[in-house]
Amino acid sequence: MKVCVIGANGQIGKQLVQLLRESEKHDVRAMVRSDEQAQALRENGIDAVVANLEGTVAEIAEAVNGCDAIVFTAGSGGHTGADKTLLVDLDGAVKSMEAADIAGVNRYVMVSALQAHNRENWNEKIRHYYVAKHYADKVLMDSNLTYTIIRPGGLTNEKGTEKVTIAENLPRATVTREDVAKTVFASLDLKNTFNRSFDLIQGEDEIKVALKQF
Amino acid sequence: MKVCVIGANGQIGKQLVQLLRESEKHDVRAMVRSDEQAQALRENGIDAVVANLEGTVAEIAEAVNGCDAIVFTAGSGGHTGADKTLLVDLDGAVKSMEAADIAGVNRYVMVSALQAHNRENWNEKIRHYYVAKHYADKVLMDSNLTYTIIRPGGLTNEKGTEKVTIAENLPRATVTREDVAKTVFASLDLKNTFNRSFDLIQGEDEIKVALKQF
Repeated sequence: MKVCVIGANGQIGKQLVQLLRESEKHDVRAMVRSDEQAQALRENGIDAVVANLEGTVAEIAEAVNGCDAIVFTAGSGGHTGADKTLLVDLDGAVKSMEAADIAGVNRYVMVSALQAHNRENWNEKIRHYYVAKHYADKVLMDSNLTYTIIRPGGLTNEKGTEKVTIAENLPRATVTREDVAKTVFASLDLKNTFNRSFDLIQGEDEIKVALKQF
Repeated sequence: MKVCVIGANGQIGKQLVQLLRESEKHDVRAMVRSDEQAQALRENGIDAVVANLEGTVAEIAEAVNGCDAIVFTAGSGGHTGADKTLLVDLDGAVKSMEAADIAGVNRYVMVSALQAHNRENWNEKIRHYYVAKHYADKVLMDSNLTYTIIRPGGLTNEKGTEKVTIAENLPRATVTREDVAKTVFASLDLKNTFNRSFDLIQGEDEIKVALKQF
């Protein structure tokens, strides 16, 4: 399937684009914010489109048109101001869901945040970020899209172990960005993950095994 | 019916509390943030409870327990930081909906903002505020509560005219806080407004007529 990665220039996005590109069963389209980013990707032979999550739904719908799946891994990550968090992580994410609907893209994988579904477990330091992620996830669950919501713990840049723990509720812990990208990749066509959501941290199980046993 | 006003110390809230207090068919409970505010209300013979929208759902459920309706007219109004907007206008509002559900309060009237339902018409200067209001309204519409969403235009402190225009979509214009309070009051038990939402600006029709003809 052709997968549009929203946030393709981000740290998880870049690794996911690479996995999709090397894959035999998927194709990739990278959605980025600037012409420069798109140009650099194209020079590497990657299908790239420019669209802004603060722009219109129509603009995003055009960018995702012709794809079979969307992965949302854009976002402020909690380090930008709360206004950007509202506009990108919440409203921008929902715009991409509306765009998916318009463009007839049915599959949607959201990279969320550990315990975004449980208000009482939100990280106090970035509580506003959790509000945005919580409601974006909620809108996705109420949509007609075939969703998977992956809620990784604290992201690290270490080399992935390909071993994770996946469950409805997990305690705060870390996971490498590489293993998040690989979990997203594995979940794309794994029916067991359709219309489900889960926390993700580093663990003892092979990614595919963890996803299948969840 | 007994009506809990959330944001009873606000500029619309104060006028609504007064209307409910003078009414023969309704009783009022004022929900405020501080003991001092509650004490001042009690000295005026008003049933007052203290609860924080940044607190727990359980705390809010206790505060609204025994009421038949909730009016949400709390909020930052777009002038506070975006983090407070996320925590109060969005997550705080949704907590009060969850609290209503727990406490068995079925009727919920939301004071929203003109065109909060149409992203393309949001006021650019307070766009983050509109995001918060939009998603709070969306969660309310998807809830099991019997809602009315009132979206007033720019609020003024002039004396009310008791003449308004009410419709699904209205151009940007102003409305007095007094007339907003009176519209909320009139809609409480007006079945024609149940599970509906509308823009509200100053106009030519008596409030009750405008609500009934909508």
